[in-house]
Amino acid sequence: MSMNINQLFAVIQARRSAPPEESYTARLTAAGEDEILKKVGEEAVEVILAAKGQGQTRLVEELADLTYHTLVLLAARGLTPQDVEAELARRHAG
Amino acid sequence: MSMNINQLFAVIQARRSAPPEESYTARLTAAGEDEILKKVGEEAVEVILAAKGQGQTRLVEELADLTYHTLVLLAARGLTPQDVEAELARRHAG
Amino acid sequence: MSMNINQLFAVIQARRSAPPEESYTARLTAAGEDEILKKVGEEAVEVILAAKGQGQTRLVEELADLTYHTLVLLAARGLTPQDVEAELARRHAG
Amino acid sequence: MSMNINQLFAVIQARRSAPPEESYTARLTAAGEDEILKKVGEEAVEVILAAKGQGQTRLVEELADLTYHTLVLLAARGLTPQDVEAELARRHAG
Repeated sequence: MSMNINQLFAVIQARRSAPPEESYTARLTAAGEDEILKKVGEEAVEVILAAKGQGQTRLVEELADLTYHTLVLLAARGLTPQDVEAELARRHAG
Repeated sequence: MSMNINQLFAVIQARRSAPPEESYTARLTAAGEDEILKKVGEEAVEVILAAKGQGQTRLVEELADLTYHTLVLLAARGLTPQDVEAELARRHAG
Repeated sequence: MSMNINQLFAVIQARRSAPPEESYTARLTAAGEDEILKKVGEEAVEVILAAKGQGQTRLVEELADLTYHTLVLLAARGLTPQDVEAELARRHAG
Repeated sequence: MSMNINQLFAVIQARRSAPPEESYTARLTAAGEDEILKKVGEEAVEVILAAKGQGQTRLVEELADLTYHTLVLLAARGLTPQDVEAELARRHAG
């Protein structure tokens, strides 16, 4: 079983308006953009540390954390994964 | 037009063994894992700065940069986007 | 009243071997180098966010946090502030 | 020979208004606060990578880089190292 970025983004969009006590996504969204950005920065640091000696499993976990928090940021800004994919296509396709 | 993560990852895999003078992906891969990790950290910082006042277009560009460099890291470690998606499914699905 | 870097470093050196329940420095040291490095990364992110809109007082607080954690790192590595100052002199003096 | 933080800060203050072609400090100051903050973030990442396997000499160099860029940030904000030391004293002294 897997979950692609678009499916995860739909889950995040749905949970943003959930009761904060039931959803980390809702709590983080309510905490505001600086908190979301802090988590993006922290998870990038944890990716680096995982890569430098904590093993493949941990690295994958930290990359999942980083991915999740960048999607929460996109949602908070009214953006979507498609906005990022369009930019990637502009650069790398063709 | 768009380009999903898997398509971009396939492009990155193909370019890793390109002549360095023709491909940034090949040069970065040849520079080694610390250089890739440095870029992941730098792009996270640039995402934060873009979000704090450089506008939506710049934010999308920096998120595209961050996404690209995390994919180069996955490739360098013998991992795939599916490994990350499987971890995301384990946490967020169901 | 003030406290220069050398005085703070002496305090940190003394507290490293304090009972963990009495000292954050002791707990962080016991947690290991990756935890110290994670804090260095996090505090740098918080410096950036403070500078981008949280006010001068908060910026000073976050710079104090960053300074403190770099000193804990120096101590953990058997280095001293003088090692860094000697490198700064090599570059900037004369 | 050594150079303490206050001496380095005085050098930075003097160089901020130097001709940009003669001084990195002047160029970075002219580039603006986001560029300074980007460097603070990048140097923190380089400290982490140095600590994780590039040796003590490189770690000291990267800590010197981080220290220098935080001082450029202080100067750009009209703050001084004493502001940070006063905050450190408030927390850690007595």
